[in-house]
Amino acid sequence: MNEFDFIEKLRRRVEDGISSASSFIPHPSSLVQGIGDDAAVFKSLAGNDVVISTDLLVEDVDFRPDTTRPDLLGHKALAVSLSDVAAMGARPLWALLSIGVPDAVWNSEFLDGFYSGFFELASRYAVTLVGGDVSRTPDKIVIDSILVGETTKAGALFRSGAAPGDQIFVTGFLGDAAAGLRLIERGARLPSRTTARQPAQANPEAGEHHQLEYLLLRQLQPEPRVGWGLLLGEQQLASAMIDLSDGLSSDLNHLCAESKVGALIDAARIPIDPLVTELSGRRALDPLMLALHGGEDFELLFTVKREMVARLPARVDGVSLTHIGEIKEAVHGVLISEGSRTWNLEPGGWEHFKEARGKT
Amino acid sequence: MNEFDFIEKLRRRVEDGISSASSFIPHPSSLVQGIGDDAAVFKSLAGNDVVISTDLLVEDVDFRPDTTRPDLLGHKALAVSLSDVAAMGARPLWALLSIGVPDAVWNSEFLDGFYSGFFELASRYAVTLVGGDVSRTPDKIVIDSILVGETTKAGALFRSGAAPGDQIFVTGFLGDAAAGLRLIERGARLPSRTTARQPAQANPEAGEHHQLEYLLLRQLQPEPRVGWGLLLGEQQLASAMIDLSDGLSSDLNHLCAESKVGALIDAARIPIDPLVTELSGRRALDPLMLALHGGEDFELLFTVKREMVARLPARVDGVSLTHIGEIKEAVHGVLISEGSRTWNLEPGGWEHFKEARGKT
Repeated sequence: MNEFDFIEKLRRRVEDGISSASSFIPHPSSLVQGIGDDAAVFKSLAGNDVVISTDLLVEDVDFRPDTTRPDLLGHKALAVSLSDVAAMGARPLWALLSIGVPDAVWNSEFLDGFYSGFFELASRYAVTLVGGDVSRTPDKIVIDSILVGETTKAGALFRSGAAPGDQIFVTGFLGDAAAGLRLIERGARLPSRTTARQPAQANPEAGEHHQLEYLLLRQLQPEPRVGWGLLLGEQQLASAMIDLSDGLSSDLNHLCAESKVGALIDAARIPIDPLVTELSGRRALDPLMLALHGGEDFELLFTVKREMVARLPARVDGVSLTHIGEIKEAVHGVLISEGSRTWNLEPGGWEHFKEARGKT
Repeated sequence: MNEFDFIEKLRRRVEDGISSASSFIPHPSSLVQGIGDDAAVFKSLAGNDVVISTDLLVEDVDFRPDTTRPDLLGHKALAVSLSDVAAMGARPLWALLSIGVPDAVWNSEFLDGFYSGFFELASRYAVTLVGGDVSRTPDKIVIDSILVGETTKAGALFRSGAAPGDQIFVTGFLGDAAAGLRLIERGARLPSRTTARQPAQANPEAGEHHQLEYLLLRQLQPEPRVGWGLLLGEQQLASAMIDLSDGLSSDLNHLCAESKVGALIDAARIPIDPLVTELSGRRALDPLMLALHGGEDFELLFTVKREMVARLPARVDGVSLTHIGEIKEAVHGVLISEGSRTWNLEPGGWEHFKEARGKT
């Protein structure tokens, strides 16, 4: 059983429970979306949707203290949740942080740096830290980032709204975060003086040193697409949306499964960062594989009805948009074409329990 | 720095940030209570308060797999959050669970048992699991339990509402959970066939075997006072409230600090479970110390204006109420009287970073 099977099993168990629940007290608010999307959603009495996401980051699984910095980790803990809330078309509002650290970390500068990075990103989106929990751990740092957001009355955007004929788009460039991770695995490190803020787009004219740094930061300090999510939600331009945390191949499959549709995307249209292509050549990496299966780009993948496509802006906050394919009937499956060839796009993104999958 | 100092520092940092925040987009909802209470609270457009609590449970810090059972741990993960939401006078609605486990646990029966205990308690209060995250960890289990609740339009009850002259009450009996923990530390274990549900009150006529089991379950399977919290919130009977997670001495000090008041409680009135008194005598434990400083009873401690006291019910869901003292002016401090003697009630409850306090 991998984690997606597990979540699906949990969802069925909850849905069975809801239909047979003994009602303690009738609920004044109603659940719109439970397990199975980027965030949970319930409708407030005022008619707007409240969304809540939670993301667990574990030392030596999701990050390594020796290859990142406390401030970048604080940034990333909030960024992954901002990306979830953006993928619901919602505005981020309130954050909670549960954090567990060993004694040695408690007595270090770690938490100061961590919260500096967290607050720096939070202030950019006027997100307020409203609560959390602090605990000791025996030896590893664990962080659970919880974020509450709200939509306009128009409501949230789900993974499940795509229909055949809808056009498929992604924001920004793909493969950067995976390339950054490969570089880190091969020993690349940020210089300690690197400024925390990265440019919205890489500069291909910059020297290799700066290009490397840019890709490392795309992995260590991802920029969630808050502006895009908010615009698509408020104007209801997308029929379905998901953020690219597991990788395009996995996340497109998730979206299609929830919408009960298939898809055809064109490999030539996938916006691979020119920096990734350039650096990959010299390092025997395959840029298309990084863009398809590398996770953690935290770009948005969404579908748009044909007649709405003309209303899409070209850029939001300097981040571009690329048309990569079309939603098909479920019977076609999830496909990718490369020149004259077409094949099934199997989920190849990152799963925590992938190694365990064969055993159960 | 202990964890309370840390949280206070964080709160000041957030409050400074709020007053100087660059406004990305104005917030349609307004923050009522951030860091520093049992849960974060914000007002929905409909006028009721939404409360959110988060509780991190870490293996070998908050629980040991060899002294509990997966179903009891699932129960406790939700129970601690239900207790937080009850302490705000709110109705629990939606839960999220972030859970990280090592590979060996993922491939065991642990998660089945864990979710059984969680869902059993959730169904009693019609709480729905709406989301969460699943991750691998290198070697320890970590659980973050997030719970969303809602008040009526009357609003939430805070730690900060107590005023001199208010009367102080606690629900149920104190010291049970700490006694249970001492018994576990001395080697007591639950028989594997123990039924999950415990009686609302101990039976002093039962044999020692059953008495032991009752106290172990008070530690391993605490019963949150959801009914009491809801009633006090809906009828606005309490002026301030907190749940007893750290221990009466610590939590009364927290409540007084937030309310900027002092207090005087009477040791003779503290509702120590007769079972604790009985078992303590034979085991060289001090029942008053267990009741004052032992944490995790998850009873509610609250204050009531004099003129409202007559409106309090004697019991809710079979759980009794005890009047233990009175709120005083801040200048008096937090005091406890025992016969003719009175002394300062210093916080003596459980803190994660207590050992680290002397160092910084």
